[in-house]
Amino acid sequence: MCRWAAYRGDPIYLEELVSSPAHSLIEQSHCATRAKTATNGDGFGIAWYADRPEPGRYRDILPAWSDCNLRSIARQIRSPLFLAHVRAATHGATRRDNCHPFVHGRWSFMHNGQISGFEHIRRRMEALLSDELFHARTGTTDSELLFLLALEFGLDISPRTAIARAIETAEALSRETGGEVLVRFTAAFSNGEALYAVRYATDDKPPTLYAAPLGNERSYCLVSEPLNDEADRWAEIPNGAMIVISDRGMATERFLPQASACAA
Amino acid sequence: MCRWAAYRGDPIYLEELVSSPAHSLIEQSHCATRAKTATNGDGFGIAWYADRPEPGRYRDILPAWSDCNLRSIARQIRSPLFLAHVRAATHGATRRDNCHPFVHGRWSFMHNGQISGFEHIRRRMEALLSDELFHARTGTTDSELLFLLALEFGLDISPRTAIARAIETAEALSRETGGEVLVRFTAAFSNGEALYAVRYATDDKPPTLYAAPLGNERSYCLVSEPLNDEADRWAEIPNGAMIVISDRGMATERFLPQASACAA
Amino acid sequence: MCRWAAYRGDPIYLEELVSSPAHSLIEQSHCATRAKTATNGDGFGIAWYADRPEPGRYRDILPAWSDCNLRSIARQIRSPLFLAHVRAATHGATRRDNCHPFVHGRWSFMHNGQISGFEHIRRRMEALLSDELFHARTGTTDSELLFLLALEFGLDISPRTAIARAIETAEALSRETGGEVLVRFTAAFSNGEALYAVRYATDDKPPTLYAAPLGNERSYCLVSEPLNDEADRWAEIPNGAMIVISDRGMATERFLPQASACAA
Amino acid sequence: MCRWAAYRGDPIYLEELVSSPAHSLIEQSHCATRAKTATNGDGFGIAWYADRPEPGRYRDILPAWSDCNLRSIARQIRSPLFLAHVRAATHGATRRDNCHPFVHGRWSFMHNGQISGFEHIRRRMEALLSDELFHARTGTTDSELLFLLALEFGLDISPRTAIARAIETAEALSRETGGEVLVRFTAAFSNGEALYAVRYATDDKPPTLYAAPLGNERSYCLVSEPLNDEADRWAEIPNGAMIVISDRGMATERFLPQASACAA
Repeated sequence: MCRWAAYRGDPIYLEELVSSPAHSLIEQSHCATRAKTATNGDGFGIAWYADRPEPGRYRDILPAWSDCNLRSIARQIRSPLFLAHVRAATHGATRRDNCHPFVHGRWSFMHNGQISGFEHIRRRMEALLSDELFHARTGTTDSELLFLLALEFGLDISPRTAIARAIETAEALSRETGGEVLVRFTAAFSNGEALYAVRYATDDKPPTLYAAPLGNERSYCLVSEPLNDEADRWAEIPNGAMIVISDRGMATERFLPQASACAA
Repeated sequence: MCRWAAYRGDPIYLEELVSSPAHSLIEQSHCATRAKTATNGDGFGIAWYADRPEPGRYRDILPAWSDCNLRSIARQIRSPLFLAHVRAATHGATRRDNCHPFVHGRWSFMHNGQISGFEHIRRRMEALLSDELFHARTGTTDSELLFLLALEFGLDISPRTAIARAIETAEALSRETGGEVLVRFTAAFSNGEALYAVRYATDDKPPTLYAAPLGNERSYCLVSEPLNDEADRWAEIPNGAMIVISDRGMATERFLPQASACAA
Repeated sequence: MCRWAAYRGDPIYLEELVSSPAHSLIEQSHCATRAKTATNGDGFGIAWYADRPEPGRYRDILPAWSDCNLRSIARQIRSPLFLAHVRAATHGATRRDNCHPFVHGRWSFMHNGQISGFEHIRRRMEALLSDELFHARTGTTDSELLFLLALEFGLDISPRTAIARAIETAEALSRETGGEVLVRFTAAFSNGEALYAVRYATDDKPPTLYAAPLGNERSYCLVSEPLNDEADRWAEIPNGAMIVISDRGMATERFLPQASACAA
Repeated sequence: MCRWAAYRGDPIYLEELVSSPAHSLIEQSHCATRAKTATNGDGFGIAWYADRPEPGRYRDILPAWSDCNLRSIARQIRSPLFLAHVRAATHGATRRDNCHPFVHGRWSFMHNGQISGFEHIRRRMEALLSDELFHARTGTTDSELLFLLALEFGLDISPRTAIARAIETAEALSRETGGEVLVRFTAAFSNGEALYAVRYATDDKPPTLYAAPLGNERSYCLVSEPLNDEADRWAEIPNGAMIVISDRGMATERFLPQASACAA
């Protein structure tokens, strides 16, 4: 189970979420308190937006806590919109191409969760990709594949529908193979303008997701696990919800894959 | 706090200690049950003796659990004498040169422990090395420096005296700088013939050390933490003891640095 | 363009081909004299057979010349049958999963060459794999895919037919896409018993392949480029040939994919 | 022999020197045309100044040409003052701590050159460092040591005198050991305000150094080798010269270590 943090608002140094707080991502990579996996030592990544439409990215397979490049970069770079992730491998070997965030054009995406029986449906999921997105796949994780499927299904046009269809596709293929239908999905993603997050599971154990204002009223932070002990500051996002943070502030919508998929 | 295992006896595959048992080193690198540091994700190393006088070595900075090279090598290589180590960094950055075992000529050495205030005495310890051994230092750890000092003090002639003098030197320099005199030292080392181990601390908290026979009567395994739950199989080595495993079996001697140093 | 060396015969230290000769692979990784690409700094790998049916393997993405692990392992391990490779990337990013030799069960495989327009036929080639071999694919190179296709086509039963069908498949798919049909293929592969090599190209520029006896009469070395300047010692293998080195010595057969494919 | 580029002026993307030009550093890392060593595959590094007094830094041991992080970072970050380096190892193993630029506080430093017989004077050079700077040494290169000595000798107060004394010290120690006195030194360094460079050798073969305006009249680029074929655009800096680029433009001073050292 991975850990992540995302931010949208007035520009701040990446280190304010990555390495400075009492429960910073780097600290969490050593010892997460709410996560089921004690250690997130299988790599990390950051994607940040600056002057260009597409994000910059730095990721590596070392444990986040021992990477001096990460500390230096996070200390130097300021951004109004960024994603940061530490990985505990479930599917896919420890290598750079399997480290989040995944990036395609303007989009960045990171994920915490799992698809039960992914190895039995992976090939059929990949077969749904267009040639362009098939060749854009460089790793072997379920997370990257869900992201590419969402792009295939129109992430640029309707993020909610596209993510929902990606999840619904995984559920439908699991059902067809006769396996258990279990998807747990807590993800953040962005096109450089809005910051999106989804919390969803087919059972009652979706990976946690919290939101908090940070600094002024239009700046928000989303995290898989609170970054400090001020419990009342962090609002837990319920299962089946989608968050959109834009210039208009933070909005919450219902997120139900099956319904979306039917409507699509 | 690091974890290690060492073996001397009939040739066995390295994986029998490194990756196969219920509490193998690789498993321990994820979650040590008796160690104070939960995770040993700062690299690993193996040194094994085969046909040549000097050992082969493989070490890297990835967490041991994610290194497919380690699994393949440990599965393929058989050796009558080897050392294996997983690291949780205390002194020295995460890089290959700081990964145990350290090797010099025929000797290999690995260590679990600490010298309190090492940063204040490091330079004076290094100044005691001959030019040849000074230039042999490639990392920044206290462990490598204790090994090189022991070589300086005659590890080839009397392992016990040389290790004792290295420790005593650290204690004396700590005393001179007015700092706390605290050395905890549990190490294994070999010249390709005998396998040695020492458990020692200036206080009553020496890192643990266990021994167990493995296979036939002349084959032994030494570990920082038992590799399985058969508690009665593992003999805990007391504080202030040195183990020597040779063709004549396993012998235990008292190990008291101050006394040795006085006598030297 | 990559460089490689393979050996079958009386057990020798890997370093005798990897790091010792005047034109050793490590030296060649710095500056190949006959190759079109001056530098092979995109990783390396070795696969060697010992007591188990499947080979051991060590590969990494550093330039071979700077990897101290490779030097130590090559100096320590003796084997009667091994493959060694240094890589200059053409298809596929620099990462461990793209480093040769590739291994599947008892088989190891390494390759120097190219498929023109691979990106246009890759997906269709992958679609020909069974689920088991599809999931065994961990990298993105054309080399790994040719190896998996050969396994699919019965490498265990008839190496020559299986390799020929893999190449013929690439040629046929290129033809169908209307692109240039250009395959250059110089590969070595082994099941732990015999050592095989093929030199083939659709044009008149197949990557070079040389053979030489090494030591006693039943020990042979195969290389992409001679390891020293004793030109008369190395026999150049002609285009369209397959080498088989077994207990019966070295045999040369004609190798013509189209013919084999027609007959299959 | 290494390759480097440095810039001071209006903010530009790092990629304009690192990866975009016809003879960009990344291209040069593959095949330098004027350098004696054909390949610079032993790591790379960038140090850039932004809002903080101290620079950010990213360095790694992969060949620059295969690092996707470097391309992404260089494409995303804009800076008015930065240093970039690709390494061909002469002294010191391939590891991050030996990759340029070196950073200490506000200062960054990178170097191309050599001290003949460095291994015989290294220990005595290190002994001249204060405890603070001795502990700041994390690698084993002559370059890092010259930088730390310059800091010891007052780089903050008089860059020219400090660099001159560091070089003179190396020359004097070489003379004392009876070895050849040969220092070749082409370096760039900065405190975040001015950009400095020195070209100097005890013989007539100082590593090359070129300067060119870039963009508006107060923006300059310094390189070890021209980044494109517009030969008339690049001014070769003579042996025994120091460049200072500041808000007042580019100035050239004579640089003679012995004279400076005498005057100090």
